[in-house]
Amino acid sequence: MARTQGSNGQETAKRIDEVALKLFAKKGYAAVSMREIALEVGVQAGALYNHCPNKQALLTNLLADHMQALLDAWGDMELPKDPAQQLEAFVRFHIQYHLKRPDQVFISYMELRNLELDNFKKIEALRRQYEAIPKNILAAGQMAGQFNLADTHVAAMAILAQLTGVTTWYREQGRLSQQKIEDIYVQLVCQSVGITLSGGH
Amino acid sequence: MARTQGSNGQETAKRIDEVALKLFAKKGYAAVSMREIALEVGVQAGALYNHCPNKQALLTNLLADHMQALLDAWGDMELPKDPAQQLEAFVRFHIQYHLKRPDQVFISYMELRNLELDNFKKIEALRRQYEAIPKNILAAGQMAGQFNLADTHVAAMAILAQLTGVTTWYREQGRLSQQKIEDIYVQLVCQSVGITLSGGH
Repeated sequence: MARTQGSNGQETAKRIDEVALKLFAKKGYAAVSMREIALEVGVQAGALYNHCPNKQALLTNLLADHMQALLDAWGDMELPKDPAQQLEAFVRFHIQYHLKRPDQVFISYMELRNLELDNFKKIEALRRQYEAIPKNILAAGQMAGQFNLADTHVAAMAILAQLTGVTTWYREQGRLSQQKIEDIYVQLVCQSVGITLSGGH
Repeated sequence: MARTQGSNGQETAKRIDEVALKLFAKKGYAAVSMREIALEVGVQAGALYNHCPNKQALLTNLLADHMQALLDAWGDMELPKDPAQQLEAFVRFHIQYHLKRPDQVFISYMELRNLELDNFKKIEALRRQYEAIPKNILAAGQMAGQFNLADTHVAAMAILAQLTGVTTWYREQGRLSQQKIEDIYVQLVCQSVGITLSGGH
Protein backbone atom coordinates (compact mmCIF):
# COMPACT_ATOMS: atom_id res chain seq x y z
CA MET A 1 0.00 0.00 0.00
CA ALA A 2 2.91 2.38 -0.69
CA ARG A 3 1.39 5.64 -1.86
CA THR A 4 4.05 7.87 -3.35
CA GLN A 5 1.86 10.69 -4.63
CA GLY A 6 2.42 14.29 -3.51
CA SER A 7 0.09 16.09 -1.11
CA ASN A 8 -2.57 16.57 -3.78
CA GLY A 9 -2.36 12.88 -4.59
CA GLN A 10 -2.67 12.04 -0.90
CA GLU A 11 -5.78 14.21 -0.62
CA THR A 12 -7.30 12.40 -3.59
CA ALA A 13 -6.30 9.00 -2.24
CA LYS A 14 -7.98 9.77 1.08
CA ARG A 15 -11.11 10.98 -0.72
CA ILE A 16 -11.23 7.87 -2.92
CA ASP A 17 -11.07 5.64 0.18
CA GLU A 18 -13.86 7.63 1.87
CA VAL A 19 -16.13 7.48 -1.17
CA ALA A 20 -15.44 3.79 -1.83
CA LEU A 21 -16.21 2.96 1.81
CA LYS A 22 -19.45 4.92 1.72
CA LEU A 23 -20.62 3.38 -1.57
CA PHE A 24 -19.62 -0.19 -0.64
CA ALA A 25 -21.49 0.15 2.67
CA LYS A 26 -24.56 1.64 1.01
CA LYS A 27 -24.89 -0.51 -2.11
CA GLY A 28 -22.58 -3.46 -1.59
CA TYR A 29 -19.25 -4.10 -3.30
CA ALA A 30 -20.74 -5.95 -6.27
CA ALA A 31 -23.09 -3.10 -7.18
CA VAL A 32 -20.43 -0.36 -7.22
CA SER A 33 -18.20 0.32 -10.24
CA MET A 34 -14.82 2.06 -10.40
CA ARG A 35 -16.49 4.55 -12.77
CA GLU A 36 -19.08 5.41 -10.13
CA ILE A 37 -16.40 5.94 -7.49
CA ALA A 38 -14.40 8.22 -9.84
CA LEU A 39 -17.54 10.21 -10.68
CA GLU A 40 -18.43 10.73 -7.02
CA VAL A 41 -14.87 11.73 -6.11
CA GLY A 42 -14.81 14.07 -9.11
CA VAL A 43 -11.71 12.67 -10.79
CA GLN A 44 -11.02 10.95 -14.09
CA ALA A 45 -10.98 7.15 -14.00
CA GLY A 46 -7.22 7.40 -14.65
CA ALA A 47 -6.61 9.11 -11.28
CA LEU A 48 -8.52 6.29 -9.61
CA TYR A 49 -6.44 3.57 -11.28
CA ASN A 50 -3.32 5.52 -10.33
CA HIS A 51 -4.39 5.12 -6.69
CA CYS A 52 -5.48 1.51 -6.93
CA PRO A 53 -5.16 -1.04 -9.78
CA ASN A 54 -8.73 -2.35 -9.38
CA LYS A 55 -11.82 -2.57 -7.20
CA GLN A 56 -10.58 -5.72 -5.45
CA ALA A 57 -7.39 -3.95 -4.32
CA LEU A 58 -9.47 -0.98 -3.17
CA LEU A 59 -11.64 -3.21 -0.98
CA THR A 60 -8.64 -5.11 0.38
CA ASN A 61 -6.84 -1.86 1.24
CA LEU A 62 -9.94 -0.48 2.99
CA LEU A 63 -10.33 -3.59 5.14
CA ALA A 64 -6.59 -3.89 5.85
CA ASP A 65 -6.26 -0.20 6.73
CA HIS A 66 -9.24 -0.49 9.09
CA MET A 67 -7.79 -3.50 10.90
CA GLN A 68 -4.29 -2.02 11.06
CA ALA A 69 -5.57 1.30 12.45
CA LEU A 70 -7.56 -0.65 15.06
CA LEU A 71 -4.49 -2.65 16.08
CA ASP A 72 -2.37 0.52 16.23
CA ALA A 73 -4.96 2.31 18.36
CA TRP A 74 -4.98 -0.53 20.88
CA GLY A 75 -1.15 -0.62 20.79
CA ASP A 76 -1.11 3.04 21.82
CA MET A 77 -3.15 2.37 24.97
CA GLU A 78 -1.49 2.32 28.38
CA LEU A 79 -2.71 -0.85 29.99
CA PRO A 80 -3.27 -1.69 33.64
CA LYS A 81 -1.62 -4.90 34.90
CA ASP A 82 -4.74 -6.53 36.33
CA PRO A 83 -6.61 -8.77 33.84
CA ALA A 84 -10.04 -7.59 35.09
CA GLN A 85 -9.01 -3.97 34.56
CA GLN A 86 -7.55 -4.85 31.16
CA LEU A 87 -10.85 -6.45 30.22
CA GLU A 88 -12.73 -3.32 31.23
CA ALA A 89 -10.29 -1.20 29.20
CA PHE A 90 -10.81 -3.46 26.19
CA VAL A 91 -14.62 -3.29 26.43
CA ARG A 92 -14.55 0.52 26.48
CA PHE A 93 -11.92 0.72 23.74
CA HIS A 94 -13.78 -1.61 21.37
CA ILE A 95 -17.12 0.16 21.81
CA GLN A 96 -15.60 3.63 21.46
CA TYR A 97 -13.57 2.72 18.39
CA HIS A 98 -16.32 0.91 16.50
CA LEU A 99 -19.23 3.24 17.27
CA LYS A 100 -17.35 5.93 15.37
CA ARG A 101 -16.97 3.66 12.33
CA PRO A 102 -20.25 1.85 11.54
CA ASP A 103 -19.50 1.67 7.78
CA GLN A 104 -16.14 -0.02 8.38
CA VAL A 105 -17.74 -2.51 10.76
CA PHE A 106 -20.44 -3.28 8.24
CA ILE A 107 -18.19 -3.88 5.24
CA SER A 108 -15.61 -5.73 7.36
CA TYR A 109 -18.24 -8.35 8.05
CA MET A 110 -20.27 -8.25 4.86
CA GLU A 111 -17.61 -7.99 2.17
CA LEU A 112 -15.26 -10.72 3.39
CA ARG A 113 -17.01 -13.05 0.93
CA ASN A 114 -16.01 -10.76 -1.95
CA LEU A 115 -12.28 -10.99 -1.24
CA GLU A 116 -10.11 -13.19 -3.43
CA LEU A 117 -8.37 -15.93 -1.44
CA ASP A 118 -4.99 -14.24 -0.95
CA ASN A 119 -6.64 -10.99 0.09
CA PHE A 120 -8.99 -12.84 2.42
CA LYS A 121 -6.01 -14.53 4.09
CA LYS A 122 -4.34 -11.16 4.61
CA ILE A 123 -7.42 -9.68 6.31
CA GLU A 124 -8.03 -12.89 8.25
CA ALA A 125 -4.49 -12.68 9.68
CA LEU A 126 -5.13 -9.12 10.90
CA ARG A 127 -8.43 -10.20 12.43
CA ARG A 128 -6.69 -13.06 14.25
CA GLN A 129 -4.19 -10.55 15.66
CA TYR A 130 -7.03 -8.47 17.04
CA GLU A 131 -8.93 -11.49 18.39
CA ALA A 132 -5.75 -12.46 20.25
CA ILE A 133 -6.08 -9.33 22.41
CA PRO A 134 -9.21 -10.37 24.35
CA LYS A 135 -8.09 -14.02 24.21
CA ASN A 136 -4.82 -13.18 25.96
CA ILE A 137 -6.58 -11.07 28.57
CA LEU A 138 -9.02 -13.90 29.29
CA ALA A 139 -6.23 -16.47 29.45
CA ALA A 140 -4.31 -14.29 31.91
CA GLY A 141 -7.39 -13.84 34.11
CA GLN A 142 -8.10 -17.55 33.97
CA MET A 143 -4.47 -18.40 34.90
CA ALA A 144 -4.64 -15.95 37.80
CA GLY A 145 -7.79 -17.69 39.06
CA GLN A 146 -9.79 -14.45 38.67
CA PHE A 147 -12.02 -15.61 35.81
CA ASN A 148 -14.24 -18.67 35.53
CA LEU A 149 -14.40 -19.73 31.89
CA ALA A 150 -14.88 -23.11 30.25
CA ASP A 151 -13.19 -21.92 27.04
CA THR A 152 -11.28 -18.66 26.64
CA HIS A 153 -11.33 -18.82 22.82
CA VAL A 154 -15.12 -19.07 22.57
CA ALA A 155 -15.53 -16.48 25.33
CA ALA A 156 -13.34 -14.04 23.39
CA MET A 157 -15.38 -14.53 20.21
CA ALA A 158 -18.62 -14.08 22.18
CA ILE A 159 -17.38 -10.87 23.78
CA LEU A 160 -16.25 -9.45 20.42
CA ALA A 161 -19.63 -10.27 18.83
CA GLN A 162 -21.63 -8.63 21.58
CA LEU A 163 -19.46 -5.51 21.64
CA THR A 164 -19.48 -5.08 17.86
CA GLY A 165 -23.24 -5.64 17.91
CA VAL A 166 -23.69 -2.25 19.58
CA THR A 167 -23.10 -0.61 16.19
CA THR A 168 -26.29 -2.20 14.80
CA TRP A 169 -28.66 -0.52 17.29
CA TYR A 170 -26.83 2.47 18.82
CA ARG A 171 -28.30 5.89 17.99
CA GLU A 172 -26.67 9.11 19.17
CA GLN A 173 -30.05 10.52 20.18
CA GLY A 174 -31.08 7.28 21.88
CA ARG A 175 -32.20 6.52 25.44
CA LEU A 176 -28.69 5.83 26.73
CA SER A 177 -25.47 7.84 26.47
CA GLN A 178 -22.42 6.08 25.07
CA GLN A 179 -20.81 6.28 28.52
CA LYS A 180 -23.80 4.53 30.08
CA ILE A 181 -23.77 1.85 27.37
CA GLU A 182 -20.08 1.22 28.05
CA ASP A 183 -20.84 0.86 31.77
CA ILE A 184 -23.59 -1.67 31.06
CA TYR A 185 -21.30 -3.73 28.82
CA VAL A 186 -18.47 -3.61 31.36
CA GLN A 187 -20.84 -5.14 33.90
CA LEU A 188 -22.17 -7.76 31.46
CA VAL A 189 -18.73 -8.79 30.24
CA CYS A 190 -17.13 -8.83 33.68
CA GLN A 191 -19.98 -10.92 35.04
CA SER A 192 -19.82 -13.23 32.00
CA VAL A 193 -16.19 -14.15 32.78
CA GLY A 194 -17.17 -14.88 36.37
CA ILE A 195 -16.27 -11.67 38.16
CA THR A 196 -19.04 -10.95 40.66
CA LEU A 197 -20.02 -7.30 40.82
CA SER A 198 -22.24 -5.85 43.51
CA GLY A 199 -25.44 -4.17 42.25
CA GLY A 200 -25.91 -2.58 38.81
CA HIS A 201 -23.64 0.44 38.37
CA MET B 1 -47.77 -14.03 0.88
CA ALA B 2 -50.84 -16.02 -0.21
CA ARG B 3 -49.66 -18.73 -2.54
CA THR B 4 -52.55 -20.34 -4.28
CA GLN B 5 -50.70 -22.53 -6.77
CA GLY B 6 -51.20 -26.29 -6.87
CA SER B 7 -48.62 -28.78 -5.58
CA ASN B 8 -46.37 -28.25 -8.60
CA GLY B 9 -46.58 -24.53 -8.04
CA GLN B 10 -45.74 -25.02 -4.38
CA GLU B 11 -42.68 -27.09 -5.31
CA THR B 12 -41.54 -24.34 -7.66
CA ALA B 13 -42.23 -21.64 -5.09
CA LYS B 14 -40.11 -23.48 -2.53
CA ARG B 15 -37.31 -23.94 -5.06
CA ILE B 16 -37.43 -20.26 -6.02
CA ASP B 17 -37.06 -19.25 -2.37
CA GLU B 18 -34.13 -21.63 -1.89
CA VAL B 19 -32.32 -20.39 -4.98
CA ALA B 20 -32.98 -16.72 -4.22
CA LEU B 21 -31.68 -17.18 -0.67
CA LYS B 22 -28.53 -18.91 -1.91
CA LEU B 23 -27.82 -16.31 -4.59
CA PHE B 24 -28.55 -13.31 -2.34
CA ALA B 25 -26.25 -14.73 0.33
CA LYS B 26 -23.49 -15.49 -2.17
CA LYS B 27 -23.53 -12.37 -4.35
CA GLY B 28 -25.66 -9.84 -2.53
CA TYR B 29 -29.19 -8.72 -3.41
CA ALA B 30 -28.10 -5.91 -5.73
CA ALA B 31 -25.97 -8.22 -7.87
CA VAL B 32 -28.68 -10.84 -8.48
CA SER B 33 -31.34 -10.47 -11.19
CA MET B 34 -34.76 -12.13 -11.48
CA ARG B 35 -33.54 -13.58 -14.79
CA GLU B 36 -30.60 -15.25 -13.00
CA ILE B 37 -32.91 -16.73 -10.35
CA ALA B 38 -35.28 -18.09 -13.02
CA LEU B 39 -32.34 -19.58 -14.95
CA GLU B 40 -30.96 -21.33 -11.87
CA VAL B 41 -34.38 -22.68 -10.86
CA GLY B 42 -34.94 -23.83 -14.43
CA VAL B 43 -38.22 -21.98 -15.06
CA GLN B 44 -39.31 -19.24 -17.41
CA ALA B 45 -39.23 -15.72 -16.00
CA GLY B 46 -43.06 -15.83 -16.15
CA ALA B 47 -43.23 -18.60 -13.53
CA LEU B 48 -41.02 -16.50 -11.28
CA TYR B 49 -43.23 -13.41 -11.60
CA ASN B 50 -46.24 -15.64 -10.95
CA HIS B 51 -44.67 -16.51 -7.58
CA CYS B 52 -43.51 -13.02 -6.71
CA PRO B 53 -44.12 -9.66 -8.41
CA ASN B 54 -40.51 -8.48 -8.10
CA LYS B 55 -37.14 -8.97 -6.47
CA GLN B 56 -38.02 -6.65 -3.58
CA ALA B 57 -41.07 -8.77 -2.68
CA LEU B 58 -38.93 -11.91 -2.96
CA LEU B 59 -36.41 -10.53 -0.45
CA THR B 60 -39.13 -9.29 1.89
CA ASN B 61 -40.87 -12.67 1.85
CA LEU B 62 -37.62 -14.50 2.51
CA LEU B 63 -36.82 -12.34 5.53
CA ALA B 64 -40.40 -12.39 6.83
CA ASP B 65 -40.71 -16.17 6.42
CA HIS B 66 -37.43 -16.63 8.27
CA MET B 67 -38.51 -14.46 11.21
CA GLN B 68 -41.98 -16.00 11.34
CA ALA B 69 -40.61 -19.57 11.31
CA LEU B 70 -38.21 -18.61 14.10
CA LEU B 71 -41.05 -17.16 16.19
CA ASP B 72 -43.21 -20.24 15.54
CA ALA B 73 -40.38 -22.60 16.52
CA TRP B 74 -39.93 -20.80 19.84
CA GLY B 75 -43.71 -20.78 20.34
CA ASP B 76 -43.69 -24.58 20.03
CA MET B 77 -41.22 -24.98 22.90
CA GLU B 78 -42.35 -26.17 26.31
CA LEU B 79 -40.83 -23.74 28.70
CA PRO B 80 -39.76 -24.20 32.31
CA LYS B 81 -41.11 -21.68 34.82
CA ASP B 82 -37.78 -20.57 36.26
CA PRO B 83 -36.22 -17.55 34.46
CA ALA B 84 -32.68 -18.99 34.73
CA GLN B 85 -33.87 -22.23 33.12
CA GLN B 86 -35.79 -20.26 30.48
CA LEU B 87 -32.61 -18.35 29.69
CA GLU B 88 -30.69 -21.60 29.27
CA ALA B 89 -33.45 -22.93 27.00
CA PHE B 90 -33.31 -19.75 24.92
CA VAL B 91 -29.52 -19.91 24.54
CA ARG B 92 -29.67 -23.51 23.29
CA PHE B 93 -32.68 -22.79 21.04
CA HIS B 94 -31.11 -19.73 19.39
CA ILE B 95 -27.79 -21.48 18.70
CA GLN B 96 -29.44 -24.66 17.40
CA TYR B 97 -31.87 -22.78 15.17
CA HIS B 98 -29.37 -20.36 13.64
CA LEU B 99 -26.44 -22.74 13.13
CA LYS B 100 -28.66 -24.65 10.70
CA ARG B 101 -29.40 -21.47 8.73
CA PRO B 102 -26.22 -19.43 8.14
CA ASP B 103 -27.51 -17.97 4.84
CA GLN B 104 -30.70 -16.67 6.46
CA VAL B 105 -28.71 -15.13 9.30
CA PHE B 106 -26.38 -13.48 6.83
CA ILE B 107 -29.02 -11.92 4.59
CA SER B 108 -31.22 -11.00 7.56
CA TYR B 109 -28.45 -8.71 8.73
CA MET B 110 -26.89 -7.66 5.45
CA GLU B 111 -29.92 -7.01 3.26
CA LEU B 112 -32.00 -4.94 5.69
CA ARG B 113 -30.56 -1.84 3.97
CA ASN B 114 -32.02 -3.02 0.65
CA LEU B 115 -35.59 -3.14 1.92
CA GLU B 116 -37.98 -0.36 0.97
CA LEU B 117 -39.33 1.48 4.01
CA ASP B 118 -42.66 -0.35 4.37
CA ASN B 119 -40.98 -3.72 3.96
CA PHE B 120 -38.28 -2.75 6.41
CA LYS B 121 -40.91 -1.82 8.99
CA LYS B 122 -42.60 -5.19 8.54
CA ILE B 123 -39.36 -7.10 9.15
CA GLU B 124 -38.38 -4.75 11.97
CA ALA B 125 -41.68 -5.52 13.74
CA LEU B 126 -40.98 -9.26 13.54
CA ARG B 127 -37.45 -8.73 14.84
CA ARG B 128 -38.83 -6.72 17.77
CA GLN B 129 -41.16 -9.61 18.58
CA TYR B 130 -38.23 -11.97 18.74
CA GLU B 131 -36.08 -9.57 20.76
CA ALA B 132 -38.92 -9.38 23.27
CA ILE B 133 -38.37 -13.06 24.15
CA PRO B 134 -34.97 -12.68 25.86
CA LYS B 135 -36.01 -9.25 27.14
CA ASN B 136 -39.01 -10.72 28.95
CA ILE B 137 -36.95 -13.55 30.39
CA LEU B 138 -34.35 -11.09 31.68
CA ALA B 139 -37.02 -8.80 33.11
CA ALA B 140 -38.63 -11.76 34.92
CA GLY B 141 -35.29 -12.87 36.37
CA GLN B 142 -34.50 -9.33 37.42
CA MET B 143 -37.92 -8.94 39.09
CA ALA B 144 -37.42 -12.24 40.91
CA GLY B 145 -34.08 -10.98 42.23
CA GLN B 146 -32.24 -13.82 40.46
CA PHE B 147 -30.41 -11.69 37.89
CA ASN B 148 -28.18 -8.66 38.38
CA LEU B 149 -28.51 -6.40 35.33
CA ALA B 150 -28.18 -2.66 34.93
CA ASP B 151 -30.35 -2.69 31.79
CA THR B 152 -32.37 -5.67 30.56
CA HIS B 153 -32.88 -4.19 27.07
CA VAL B 154 -29.16 -3.77 26.38
CA ALA B 155 -28.43 -7.14 27.97
CA ALA B 156 -30.94 -8.82 25.63
CA MET B 157 -29.35 -7.19 22.57
CA ALA B 158 -25.89 -8.21 23.78
CA ILE B 159 -26.96 -11.81 24.33
CA LEU B 160 -28.60 -12.00 20.89
CA ALA B 161 -25.47 -10.60 19.21
CA GLN B 162 -23.13 -13.04 20.89
CA LEU B 163 -25.36 -16.04 20.18
CA THR B 164 -25.89 -15.14 16.52
CA GLY B 165 -22.14 -14.52 16.22
CA VAL B 166 -21.55 -18.27 16.54
CA THR B 167 -22.66 -18.66 12.90
CA THR B 168 -19.67 -16.61 11.71
CA TRP B 169 -17.01 -18.96 13.10
CA TYR B 170 -18.68 -22.35 13.74
CA ARG B 171 -17.43 -25.22 11.60
CA GLU B 172 -18.95 -28.69 11.80
CA GLN B 173 -15.50 -30.29 11.77
CA GLY B 174 -14.13 -27.79 14.30
CA ARG B 175 -12.50 -28.30 17.70
CA LEU B 176 -15.79 -28.18 19.62
CA SER B 177 -19.06 -30.06 19.16
CA GLN B 178 -22.25 -28.02 18.91
CA GLN B 179 -23.34 -29.43 22.28
CA LYS B 180 -20.09 -28.27 23.88
CA ILE B 181 -20.46 -24.80 22.31
CA GLU B 182 -23.99 -24.55 23.69
CA ASP B 183 -22.70 -25.49 27.16
CA ILE B 184 -20.01 -22.79 26.98
CA TYR B 185 -22.56 -20.14 25.96
CA VAL B 186 -24.99 -21.22 28.68
CA GLN B 187 -22.24 -20.61 31.22
CA LEU B 188 -21.21 -17.27 29.66
CA VAL B 189 -24.76 -15.96 29.39
CA CYS B 190 -25.85 -17.16 32.82
CA GLN B 191 -22.77 -15.61 34.39
CA SER B 192 -23.31 -12.40 32.42
CA VAL B 193 -26.75 -11.90 33.98
CA GLY B 194 -25.25 -12.41 37.41
CA ILE B 195 -25.96 -16.09 38.09
CA THR B 196 -22.88 -17.55 39.75
CA LEU B 197 -21.97 -21.02 38.52
CA SER B 198 -19.41 -23.24 40.18
CA GLY B 199 -16.47 -24.28 37.94
CA GLY B 200 -16.50 -24.50 34.15
CA HIS B 201 -18.81 -27.27 32.97
